[in-house]
Amino acid sequence: YQPQQKLLNSVDRCVDEALEGIVSSSGCLSLLRGHRVVVRADLDALKGRVALLSGGGSGHEPAHAGYIGSGMLSAAVAGGVFASPPPASVLAAILCLRDAGVSGVLLIVKNYTGDRLNFGLAAEQARNRGVAVEMVVVADDCAFDRPSKAGRRGLCGTVFVHKLAGALAEEGCPLDEIVSKVTEAVKGIGTLGVSLSPCSVPGCLPSFDLPAGEMELGLGIHGEPGIKRSKVTSADEVVKTMVDHMTNPASQSHLSLKSGDSVVLCVNNLGALSCLEISVVTRSAIRYLEGRGVRVARVMSGSFMTSLEMAGVSLSMMRADQEILRLFDAKTTASAWPNLSTVCISGTSYILDPPAKDMQETSHTEGPLSDVMRKALEAVCSSLLQRQEELNSLDRASGDGDCGNTHAQAAKAIQEWLPGHIVPGCPGQLLSTLAGLVQERMGGSSGARGDMVNRSGGEDMVNRRGGGYLDALCPAVEELRRLTTSPPGGHMAILQAAVEKAELGAESTRDLTARAGRASYIATVHVTLPDPGAVAIAAILRAVFEALGGQK
Amino acid sequence: YQPQQKLLNSVDRCVDEALEGIVSSSGCLSLLRGHRVVVRADLDALKGRVALLSGGGSGHEPAHAGYIGSGMLSAAVAGGVFASPPPASVLAAILCLRDAGVSGVLLIVKNYTGDRLNFGLAAEQARNRGVAVEMVVVADDCAFDRPSKAGRRGLCGTVFVHKLAGALAEEGCPLDEIVSKVTEAVKGIGTLGVSLSPCSVPGCLPSFDLPAGEMELGLGIHGEPGIKRSKVTSADEVVKTMVDHMTNPASQSHLSLKSGDSVVLCVNNLGALSCLEISVVTRSAIRYLEGRGVRVARVMSGSFMTSLEMAGVSLSMMRADQEILRLFDAKTTASAWPNLSTVCISGTSYILDPPAKDMQETSHTEGPLSDVMRKALEAVCSSLLQRQEELNSLDRASGDGDCGNTHAQAAKAIQEWLPGHIVPGCPGQLLSTLAGLVQERMGGSSGARGDMVNRSGGEDMVNRRGGGYLDALCPAVEELRRLTTSPPGGHMAILQAAVEKAELGAESTRDLTARAGRASYIATVHVTLPDPGAVAIAAILRAVFEALGGQK
Repeated sequence: YQPQQKLLNSVDRCVDEALEGIVSSSGCLSLLRGHRVVVRADLDALKGRVALLSGGGSGHEPAHAGYIGSGMLSAAVAGGVFASPPPASVLAAILCLRDAGVSGVLLIVKNYTGDRLNFGLAAEQARNRGVAVEMVVVADDCAFDRPSKAGRRGLCGTVFVHKLAGALAEEGCPLDEIVSKVTEAVKGIGTLGVSLSPCSVPGCLPSFDLPAGEMELGLGIHGEPGIKRSKVTSADEVVKTMVDHMTNPASQSHLSLKSGDSVVLCVNNLGALSCLEISVVTRSAIRYLEGRGVRVARVMSGSFMTSLEMAGVSLSMMRADQEILRLFDAKTTASAWPNLSTVCISGTSYILDPPAKDMQETSHTEGPLSDVMRKALEAVCSSLLQRQEELNSLDRASGDGDCGNTHAQAAKAIQEWLPGHIVPGCPGQLLSTLAGLVQERMGGSSGARGDMVNRSGGEDMVNRRGGGYLDALCPAVEELRRLTTSPPGGHMAILQAAVEKAELGAESTRDLTARAGRASYIATVHVTLPDPGAVAIAAILRAVFEALGGQK
Repeated sequence: YQPQQKLLNSVDRCVDEALEGIVSSSGCLSLLRGHRVVVRADLDALKGRVALLSGGGSGHEPAHAGYIGSGMLSAAVAGGVFASPPPASVLAAILCLRDAGVSGVLLIVKNYTGDRLNFGLAAEQARNRGVAVEMVVVADDCAFDRPSKAGRRGLCGTVFVHKLAGALAEEGCPLDEIVSKVTEAVKGIGTLGVSLSPCSVPGCLPSFDLPAGEMELGLGIHGEPGIKRSKVTSADEVVKTMVDHMTNPASQSHLSLKSGDSVVLCVNNLGALSCLEISVVTRSAIRYLEGRGVRVARVMSGSFMTSLEMAGVSLSMMRADQEILRLFDAKTTASAWPNLSTVCISGTSYILDPPAKDMQETSHTEGPLSDVMRKALEAVCSSLLQRQEELNSLDRASGDGDCGNTHAQAAKAIQEWLPGHIVPGCPGQLLSTLAGLVQERMGGSSGARGDMVNRSGGEDMVNRRGGGYLDALCPAVEELRRLTTSPPGGHMAILQAAVEKAELGAESTRDLTARAGRASYIATVHVTLPDPGAVAIAAILRAVFEALGGQK
């Protein structure tokens, strides 16, 4: 086994270089020489106020340096990856804040033995030097029904604490008052994570194995064990399992939450989940909470407390009254705090009716060709569905691998539409109707192609902006033009010739692909497969031909 | 092969659900019923101004809905994953903006055939309905020396265009003026990506294969081919290759950049790279550009235009004069726009001297035991380095897998320190010195343990907050206490007994692990390995024993 390849310069220096990247790109942060300590560059602004210091192991970026700014942290101390920072650095940070003339320092610490120990030691050493230091420990993990002696772990809910304490400090609240308000708020914060993959500390193997298709519920942000493994289910089901577990009164580490309560929700990407998935999970969480009668007051969704490249998500909730929302909404310049609106999420309608009058289709009527066209359409749809995987596979050689899926989506849209609707007798109306259907359901450039074929009547306009499928379509269209001058008895022969021209044209794209596709850039891959769009065109024409009684 | 497992409800509905997640969690966005169109909820604010519409395939979140807000986009149209949106939806969005009383609509389109086609069609249809519509096409890809007929692809640099055009529209600039200013700015924008993994469209296989440890330079945001494959090298080298290629005048798609130019830099996570890596790459990019005499005016670093879960990064640069910086710095409420300061990055010093006076160590002197202690330390360090992999492997069963690395880091720190320094003759001073070294370099809870062992002289304080390694340490300490009362001739026998007690203690943790570690939660895994910390303690004591002449 080899450690996973990462984009770094050195395992030993990666934390220092990451901090330098964060600080040097910010413009309003400083690094303490000889320490992994980041402080606000405008320390003068803290004079006479309470300063907030947090930190912990690295690998959780943007935590904690990303939360430094007016209205949030004053400084953050970083340890090695997943390792607690040394007390000497915590002490250096505290003394640096003291020298700026702060009235006191609040340490916000996640509940891990190392962090409690190292921040606790530094706090003692700072108190010996006359600094007013207090410590709040965040233990928001809802995973374990019976937590160990070390207590619940500190997770992404810590970011809520940074925000509330930061807003209080900014408005000049004294240290003891911040401690008591924050300690109260912490009781209303809970977090639970789920992951589809492990992560690996730079230079190390992954901290555990998780078979493909499985997920682990309740993991810690360093890959510590969770409570349950199972097959990955739907986002809705995963969210339901998470929220139910988090709020289950039978668990000693549950968050008490009842119908009518207001919460702030944080949907946190643990690292490598796509933003698409995070948005789907966010929808699931809002809907499920609202279904349980909970008022979702604010939502933050993104990467707030990561676990390197873990493909997972955590949900954090904080019970919120008006005062908590006021502090949550207060301004901050911290770079990792998102641009949020102060509108209450639950109860705000977000569906708008589109402008109707200019968009409507005209109605249409049946004609003598309606039945034939229905038959041809059915054949085309089933041919495209049959070839879905073949087209995907061809597309992987030269494109993004979804050509079969895109055509199958259109085929399904037409199949669903056919039973309840009249197939227009006028070919122009039929094409317009299909183009509308395909535009709505299919997306991609083929959608517009449907419309353009309809609008321009042929390949002229398509040629002006088109793709590789034209090598099949153009020779066939050339052949079909003869339909206007030939007698009805010769139509099937012309159609047959068009099908064969299209198939030849599709075959001819084998070389074309090698010149223009992926293979032209990646010298080691030799692609001699036809263009999937051209293959689809040929298949569509053959399906029409056979539906009209042509020979296979 | 199975498509990669994702946290979704359905492949067909994932884009609609993601949009619903984004809109329903925002509080200031609306969805057009029947379309994948997101618009500002406060459309009234646009009356009399130019509206900005962008969009394209999904899978690039937070693009484009995340850039909607005052000072950026007015609306965004989403297609399926990696598929262009249908013209009917683009038209619906334009007509919706028209109905809000805007003075004109600017379409900001990434240069892809499908997007040009579909936005272009909708623009024609809207003009037929009397709407003033213009289109700006962004083609910022710097990958290909000789781009194909379709031209350079549109990539993350598009986000710069959203920002500039948004600021202009917000201050009431007319449509034609926005078009000409933005068209000019686009010429100064370039982007290049690199990836260590492919991504996969939901329900599909990965769009290409990339062997572990390799990277591809110049990929498109849909996994389209790049220009070169190679082994993953260091972040510094990768960044140098990227910037050199982007600015190489021999390439038709290069960005002209010379010493003395100012740029805005965007370091964009393509999906699954850890935030730690992104920060390291950000540092590399700033340093390399500054080394070439380029003034880095602003830096944004994060996820701005992703490719699902691709483990890669793109660099975008925009040449920036004072006017461009003014527009870049203008306020926006768009949720995906980061909280940036308006300080110029280059030329801003960010290193601060720590408070020195309270932190200093006292000086120390040599003693008769200095040589023996040096020998023992050397033996301990080489033993820990030898066991690095073994300790990591034990730690993977119950922790985060870095126990060996953490101890090796301490060993290296001591090895580096030894040659240039006096080993203090007083054991207390030695322990204090080592604790300082370990605290500075090692992190983790072991760092504090060094200090605590020193401060408290034994296991009392450690026991109060400690871990599994105590099972090896405590019996050994018990044995070593006898040193104070026994004659010097018996010391080696006591030390030997202590080593053996520690080794027995380490062995005894095999059951302990199974009760408290990962295995206690994950029923299918049976761990009967000793605690890595306990094994390390035993190894340290044995190394000391052997260095003093004891039998192996």
